Amino acid sequence: MRLALLSLSLCVSLLSTAAVAQTKPEDAIKYRRSVYTVLLWNWMPMNAMVRGRIPFDAAEFASRAERVAALAPQLLEGFPQGSHEGATTDAKPAIWTNFDDFSAKMKDLERETAALASIAKGGDQAAIQEQFAKTGGTCKACHDEYKAD
Amino acid sequence: MRLALLSLSLCVSLLSTAAVAQTKPEDAIKYRRSVYTVLLWNWMPMNAMVRGRIPFDAAEFASRAERVAALAPQLLEGFPQGSHEGATTDAKPAIWTNFDDFSAKMKDLERETAALASIAKGGDQAAIQEQFAKTGGTCKACHDEYKAD
Repeated sequence: MRLALLSLSLCVSLLSTAAVAQTKPEDAIKYRRSVYTVLLWNWMPMNAMVRGRIPFDAAEFASRAERVAALAPQLLEGFPQGSHEGATTDAKPAIWTNFDDFSAKMKDLERETAALASIAKGGDQAAIQEQFAKTGGTCKACHDEYKAD
Repeated sequence: MRLALLSLSLCVSLLSTAAVAQTKPEDAIKYRRSVYTVLLWNWMPMNAMVRGRIPFDAAEFASRAERVAALAPQLLEGFPQGSHEGATTDAKPAIWTNFDDFSAKMKDLERETAALASIAKGGDQAAIQEQFAKTGGTCKACHDEYKAD
């Protein structure tokens, strides 16, 4: 079976975007934590370059910025209603009582990571540095209100 | 601090591609498991569409295929030398004794997911179905040899 890796039980719970609302909280939590892990993995080398801890590598920076920009729009579907508990999560329940604000903050992240990816292609280090800080600000804005740690 | 979320301790271990070889095995394992989780999250709705369990939605399929194609090239750096243990992992030690073959299989996945993303944009369901099965075959080829489960 070519598709043997795809079990029916998983299908039932994951299905489509429309069905994400019916996703088990623990699956959504696992998913969103995974997106954040991959995002951070790519963010950290950029951070090290911006801070001068490792040499600036324009091609690598641009590649990682591209990845982060592609990951950012994948976060919101990891926060379906009811997924404030069920597994380890730093997500505060306020997310779901202020979901419009939370969504707006996610859109800020999407916009700024997209800008970072675009600016990174140009290779102008000063512009990259400025946009990197601006993007980090959108991370922090959301964490300050909606992440327990 | 705009970048307060980025701790020095994490920087030291993650740094750049060049430094990935020095990454702690447990960090690499967490990273690669996360990439697989996000990949599977996006794969499952496509699978449900291909199997007729949910209605085919060309735009959603194309979007998820695009994500999977972007994730596939991010896997290999999650398998640095020495990361066969240190945390829960299904990765068989054979990966590191046959790393050329393992890398080639990852390249197969990259190529076929890219083709799937490209074909998905066209919206031809029969072509999509065929390429989806072909892509699933590259998942299986690697799992059969290198994944314990």
